[in-house]
Amino acid sequence: MSRAIVGTSTPQVTAREKVMGRAQYAGDIKLPGMLHAKVLRSPHPHARIVRIDTAAARALPGVKLVVTGHDVPARHWGPHRKEQRILACGVVRHVGEEVAAVVALSEEIARDALDLIRVEYEALPALLTPAAALAGGAPEIHAGTRNIGHEMRIERGDVEAAFAACAAVYEATYEMHSQYPGYLEPMASVAAQDGNGRLTVWASTQSVFLARARLAEALDRPVSTIRVVQATTGGGFGAKIVEENNSLICAFLASRLERPVRLVNNRLEDFQGARASVPMQVWLRLGLAADGVILAKDVRITAECGAYSGLAGDVMHVTAMRSDNMHRVHNVRSHAVMAYTNNPPRGAFRGFGGQQMQFPLNCHLTVLAGMLGIDPIEVHRRNAIGAGETSVHGWKISSTGMAECLDMTRRAIRWDEKRAAPRGTGTRRRGVGIAAAMHVSGNRTLGNWDGSTILLKINEDGRVMLQTSECDMGQGANTMLSQICAQELGIPLAHVTVMAPDTDTAPFCLGSLASRVTIISGNAVLRAAREARQKLLALAAEKLGVEARQLVIADGRIAVPDQPGQSATLAEIARLHIFRHGGEGIHVRASYDAPTVMHDADYYGNVAPAHSFAAQAVEVEVDTCTGQVTVIDSFVADDCGKAINPLAVHGQTHGATVQAIGWTLYEHLQYEDGRLMNGNFADYTMPTADAVPMLRTDVVESNDPNGPYGAKGASETAILPGAAAIANAVFDAVGVRIQSLPITPEKVLAALRALKEEEAAHA
Amino acid sequence: MSRAIVGTSTPQVTAREKVMGRAQYAGDIKLPGMLHAKVLRSPHPHARIVRIDTAAARALPGVKLVVTGHDVPARHWGPHRKEQRILACGVVRHVGEEVAAVVALSEEIARDALDLIRVEYEALPALLTPAAALAGGAPEIHAGTRNIGHEMRIERGDVEAAFAACAAVYEATYEMHSQYPGYLEPMASVAAQDGNGRLTVWASTQSVFLARARLAEALDRPVSTIRVVQATTGGGFGAKIVEENNSLICAFLASRLERPVRLVNNRLEDFQGARASVPMQVWLRLGLAADGVILAKDVRITAECGAYSGLAGDVMHVTAMRSDNMHRVHNVRSHAVMAYTNNPPRGAFRGFGGQQMQFPLNCHLTVLAGMLGIDPIEVHRRNAIGAGETSVHGWKISSTGMAECLDMTRRAIRWDEKRAAPRGTGTRRRGVGIAAAMHVSGNRTLGNWDGSTILLKINEDGRVMLQTSECDMGQGANTMLSQICAQELGIPLAHVTVMAPDTDTAPFCLGSLASRVTIISGNAVLRAAREARQKLLALAAEKLGVEARQLVIADGRIAVPDQPGQSATLAEIARLHIFRHGGEGIHVRASYDAPTVMHDADYYGNVAPAHSFAAQAVEVEVDTCTGQVTVIDSFVADDCGKAINPLAVHGQTHGATVQAIGWTLYEHLQYEDGRLMNGNFADYTMPTADAVPMLRTDVVESNDPNGPYGAKGASETAILPGAAAIANAVFDAVGVRIQSLPITPEKVLAALRALKEEEAAHA
Repeated sequence: MSRAIVGTSTPQVTAREKVMGRAQYAGDIKLPGMLHAKVLRSPHPHARIVRIDTAAARALPGVKLVVTGHDVPARHWGPHRKEQRILACGVVRHVGEEVAAVVALSEEIARDALDLIRVEYEALPALLTPAAALAGGAPEIHAGTRNIGHEMRIERGDVEAAFAACAAVYEATYEMHSQYPGYLEPMASVAAQDGNGRLTVWASTQSVFLARARLAEALDRPVSTIRVVQATTGGGFGAKIVEENNSLICAFLASRLERPVRLVNNRLEDFQGARASVPMQVWLRLGLAADGVILAKDVRITAECGAYSGLAGDVMHVTAMRSDNMHRVHNVRSHAVMAYTNNPPRGAFRGFGGQQMQFPLNCHLTVLAGMLGIDPIEVHRRNAIGAGETSVHGWKISSTGMAECLDMTRRAIRWDEKRAAPRGTGTRRRGVGIAAAMHVSGNRTLGNWDGSTILLKINEDGRVMLQTSECDMGQGANTMLSQICAQELGIPLAHVTVMAPDTDTAPFCLGSLASRVTIISGNAVLRAAREARQKLLALAAEKLGVEARQLVIADGRIAVPDQPGQSATLAEIARLHIFRHGGEGIHVRASYDAPTVMHDADYYGNVAPAHSFAAQAVEVEVDTCTGQVTVIDSFVADDCGKAINPLAVHGQTHGATVQAIGWTLYEHLQYEDGRLMNGNFADYTMPTADAVPMLRTDVVESNDPNGPYGAKGASETAILPGAAAIANAVFDAVGVRIQSLPITPEKVLAALRALKEEEAAHA
Repeated sequence: MSRAIVGTSTPQVTAREKVMGRAQYAGDIKLPGMLHAKVLRSPHPHARIVRIDTAAARALPGVKLVVTGHDVPARHWGPHRKEQRILACGVVRHVGEEVAAVVALSEEIARDALDLIRVEYEALPALLTPAAALAGGAPEIHAGTRNIGHEMRIERGDVEAAFAACAAVYEATYEMHSQYPGYLEPMASVAAQDGNGRLTVWASTQSVFLARARLAEALDRPVSTIRVVQATTGGGFGAKIVEENNSLICAFLASRLERPVRLVNNRLEDFQGARASVPMQVWLRLGLAADGVILAKDVRITAECGAYSGLAGDVMHVTAMRSDNMHRVHNVRSHAVMAYTNNPPRGAFRGFGGQQMQFPLNCHLTVLAGMLGIDPIEVHRRNAIGAGETSVHGWKISSTGMAECLDMTRRAIRWDEKRAAPRGTGTRRRGVGIAAAMHVSGNRTLGNWDGSTILLKINEDGRVMLQTSECDMGQGANTMLSQICAQELGIPLAHVTVMAPDTDTAPFCLGSLASRVTIISGNAVLRAAREARQKLLALAAEKLGVEARQLVIADGRIAVPDQPGQSATLAEIARLHIFRHGGEGIHVRASYDAPTVMHDADYYGNVAPAHSFAAQAVEVEVDTCTGQVTVIDSFVADDCGKAINPLAVHGQTHGATVQAIGWTLYEHLQYEDGRLMNGNFADYTMPTADAVPMLRTDVVESNDPNGPYGAKGASETAILPGAAAIANAVFDAVGVRIQSLPITPEKVLAALRALKEEEAAHA
């Protein structure tokens, strides 16, 4: 363990093929005889499909297959509620819903054939807001649901009594919109059925085993007849966990034709087909004691899942309770309702509902701190839950660097200095804002398991092959696994190869979600590497006639330190492990299941083995003429437990920060009558380099006892505080509080006008 | 275990894709941007390469790369002696040796480019027979070798004293020629180096790990940078174990270009490039007591490996001693010398040298039986080693069905009736002949290990994925493994999938050689399946609140018999094994290493865990006008221990019988000045349907204690007795003994003429 590989910034092990342009994304895969598919989507938010005439499409030269909802398996699929079919059958429930698919010799022919499909629709009433959907007497989008996709209530302590004891109470309603995941690589799949009838799907996915289960369900065939291989994946951000249906359509077509089929979304199709985040309206009432201690919280949430519920109910669940666990609070109440509407379905997104509560909560805390005359950072510090404590929902906080994050942030942004006086000149006013957040590292919700299994094989040259089915979508999982393995075995990083997840050969894993991979599979690889090391040392000790504990591994050799001659190469020992009586290759399987529990029926229980914390401070400049808000400085302190790869942690933090800036200021899916009007990167304005300051981040290492080397998740926490930090900074700059996202120039100007009018009225 | 899957004739699990024409042989693989290679071969048996001008070839449009021996790694490769380079450098040692390679956009362009390469050779003296090579003063083909590729001497007991005690002694010299493996699929490879610099080779191979080791050696790079995947393989017969260099050339070209390259031998190239069997001259002196007991054996062998030794020394080793182990003999002596010549290199071939001694030995035994007036079958029976005995070379005979094989053969061919009287009419004379043989099942020679490891994974639907790197080349390994797994787990055969061997993910195995797969990996899969079954039953017992021993697995359920309701589906238990505290998927690794030893320096030691035995009787018709020999009946009794899949055993036996008929009567590689003159299937006459009688086989099940269900190898034994059985039958029919293979009409006619002259001389 002499060479510090863990903790050293390391370029990603997948970097070379990517920078050379040779990484194989699903859309790059070319198979002999491969055909190309395109999907016809509904132009209506809600309609009955009266008839579909595919004759002209089928007659187009080069078209090999045209299918509609009548052709797909009758079985419905869905992560919880079984609501969807591979193609819509009888009714469409949102604009963009998949109605028919064409397979042809080229994408161009398939696209042309789509134009030849005649679909006769009978429009049905469209419910385009939760209010409309939940109104009494509204028609049901799914029979028997009263348009409620999910509902939950939590109450702990005595909320009303606690409010009565508060020195300051503030209530307000926040509107939060849906954010498109915006990965570089849209949904893409290639599928082929082999001569034995087995189906292989190369997918852009965050979880090959969940993809396989989804395929088995939707295609109504056993999982063992399906193989899912993760192609190089260009970002997921939650949308590629379990809700995508690109792979289902592609696989269905390939199995029907017994020829390889490629289905790659263009950007508009991806805007229409991928799940964006869950829009929510949150009414929050929060009460603090005079010393800043949070005494009571009451929340009402209306979430909108759109036409199908997917994971949106789980997202709302997070919004309703996760943020409670970062504070030492006792009296909390949440009531959350999720409405079906005829908008496109919404679902999992980086942060997984955390930001939908951290925005209201952090805005509230700054408001209430102001009301009490306390510094908001002090309010956070005072309420921050401590290591060893159990939260109001039964979460065991095994480590927290929250106080350190807050202190670091305060220093980095020069908080005290900047808060002291008005800043900026003329119409360009500056302000600072702060927010803090927590996230889980792992989550025991998908069945009573939050585990991972690693296979570690030592080749005859002493190098290592690692096999997992946790997915690297660019976040650096493979690098992290390689680092831990190399560190434990005392070998160079380049001597570890992590294989692409493949359901045929890899062990069952849940995949990359809930910021679980570092802590869960990091622990699994730690165990595997230690077991392999023990095997190597035991055999080397036997060969060298020494005790295993005398041996070290370094520079490709196993040796007794300072005893020249008392050594063997790793390759020799790896070979000897095979070539002897009763030998076999070193091929270790190790599993780790988090020491957590499923929450009970009342949502109580420690679901995550660790929790990451972050604090963010931003400085903004608000142009009081135009209303434009510009983030001119941002600092995020991220308590990831231990940065296995600081470079990757900083990269994740930067990305999350930018995604939060996008949600807060720029990105906005625009609909008219349920139709997306800006499904392209020209009109859906993600933040570009000119909209982002030089981002600053630092890491707090709280060293979680459950984490490998103390590490926790580092992929999602940093997206959570951004919106509130910016809104708080806008308030600090110009005195207006925007509680509806995105914070557009129009809203800022309107608020400034209202403020001026109010001031004039009081003057 | 109620349904007998083991022991039931089963179509091969790979059959569907093959009969549909959809199996992917290496030559079928198409990768994006794939280029095509062709190889320029030496026209000289021995020459110095003065210069190579590739300018015109490189200038041909569509040519991407031209390489010669100057471009390949300097490191030499070879299974034992490191003699070869990827392309010849400086000197060529046989006609057909690889001198240059071209990569182009198409095979046609590559072929055209070969014609544009100008090679200036300076001819060197060619040594085309062992006699010439071993003559004093002959130039050395490899410096320092005296043209001896291998030499061995064995002597046990007191051979001379034993001969002195014999009632009958016979000595003769036998000439045996080289046989081309004649698989349907020639050598073929596709190779591609990915963006991370790792090389993948899809190969037609009998051993992916030996292929990887060979690639690493020849390309001078670590094994971990190379992945070998077995494509569907259309026969190997020994030539695809470790001596092929098609994959080396292909992989070198792909790594140089960083583009996929395909190299597929056409039939002539394969005749030139693949190793045929080792030709040998065997002088045999054998002495029997009056009661038929073999008392003494003396053997001198001259083998010819050609220009490179490869595995030919191991083959000669088998010829020199393996047949001794089938009899209860005590006094044996062998001296074997293998000569380098400037003929193409020879090597491993089904039977692995066994037939080169079984032909002489079985001819001798019939001759000596005649001299003693004993039925030759009786001589075999009297000398056959018994179960529980240890042979003269230390081999432990754990089971033998030899006597039963002989008895069965005697009955099947109606031996006693047919031997009683001359048969046939006019110029068409009939005769019967018998021979017997043994073969190893496994062989502890490749390092001190003869093991196998299986990975067995149970999917969430209760079905099974098996991973091994033993290769199915058509012989049925995957079916055998599936049967044992299904039998042990109580699941349908169709619920087992065996994955293609892949060095990245599969456990290290030696591959398909030495008839080792059934006994070695059969035992490994037995262990794996039992461990998996135990895991399933233990968890089901816990869930159902019963004892594991009360449970049975049948029809996809684990149940207490006759207790409705006391059951769970396999799928439920497989899922529960994951989804619980501390859970993980059932993913079992099991290894088996044969209970054998490496032979010592004196070639003594029990190298195989079991031995298969076979006896064959044939009836031939000899046309005394033309000399043509026709096999009109053949019966083989094969002691394979236990026929896991009788259909496959019969198929193997049929194939081996035909291959023996081919070697004995038809196939003959014809050379002129070291140049092959009949490298095609029109002129190299393998037996076609009209040359083969309706073959009859039966199985003897001697139930080996080391075998899974008692099974031993069943792929090679049946090739061993054919030549002697035919030669003995020819003698029985027309009274001439042909001791030089093949038994051509010319040789028969010449012998008949000589016999007639001799009879006339005595008349």
